[in-house]
Amino acid sequence: MINSDEFRYALGKYITGVTIVTCTGKNGPIGITVNSFSSLSLSPPLILWSPAKASKRHNTFLEAKKFIVHIASEHQLALCKSFSKSAKGENDLIWRYNDDGEAFLDNCSARFECIKHSHFDGGDHSVIVGEVIKIQTTEQDPLIYVGGKYKKL
Amino acid sequence: MINSDEFRYALGKYITGVTIVTCTGKNGPIGITVNSFSSLSLSPPLILWSPAKASKRHNTFLEAKKFIVHIASEHQLALCKSFSKSAKGENDLIWRYNDDGEAFLDNCSARFECIKHSHFDGGDHSVIVGEVIKIQTTEQDPLIYVGGKYKKL
Repeated sequence: MINSDEFRYALGKYITGVTIVTCTGKNGPIGITVNSFSSLSLSPPLILWSPAKASKRHNTFLEAKKFIVHIASEHQLALCKSFSKSAKGENDLIWRYNDDGEAFLDNCSARFECIKHSHFDGGDHSVIVGEVIKIQTTEQDPLIYVGGKYKKL
Repeated sequence: MINSDEFRYALGKYITGVTIVTCTGKNGPIGITVNSFSSLSLSPPLILWSPAKASKRHNTFLEAKKFIVHIASEHQLALCKSFSKSAKGENDLIWRYNDDGEAFLDNCSARFECIKHSHFDGGDHSVIVGEVIKIQTTEQDPLIYVGGKYKKL
């Protein structure tokens, strides 16, 4: 039997970046802070991430036909913290909109616009697979997450 | 249409740790260096990773009933490079064996012994989901991978 605290501690040894995934639901744009992002396939270009089933945002993301993954930059620490707690992020958050009317965020290190490809069951999380249809990158250094804490490179 | 080089460059903005996944095939223990590892579920305790279908090691890992994920430490840079090229790793590699006779590697930051839970299709990769049955951690600092290069914290 695996102890959850021990499991979390061991997982914390694996350094990750931090992403903010956004989509537009019935009540407008929402976001969620995620460090379960992973590249999956080059051809077709696929990525994956895993929202917790217990999250109130889970179903909105599972049903979204489009979503945008932002690799958070070191300037987005406060934003990552806010989206880990709230679907709407910071109070003074300014959403930007692309040509398709999809909301996105500025100041990230990279951005992947995705069409939902598929999803799988994964215990207390779901795995959402996205096909990348548009990419943008910046020169901003990415934020990192290790041992349960945010850090800069 | 997504350009593969552009996609790889953008994915390189997402910092990851490095893992070596091992299993025992028909011809003994093999390993593969992987940075598509991700935590998936706490209850049940699940993790995932994604081998490329083009890899000669793909089928052995897909068919393995057990595998071990090692979060590579900063002392395992050469080992990670060797397992990215070869299933057998370094020439002078010494495998250790657990009570079940499963081969594993020393000197990592954390180790997850897994029973295969499921697998999914993911474009030119497969997604392999493992249920964690045993965990070990050390105080060794983990290796990181960013922009296509290995780095130390």
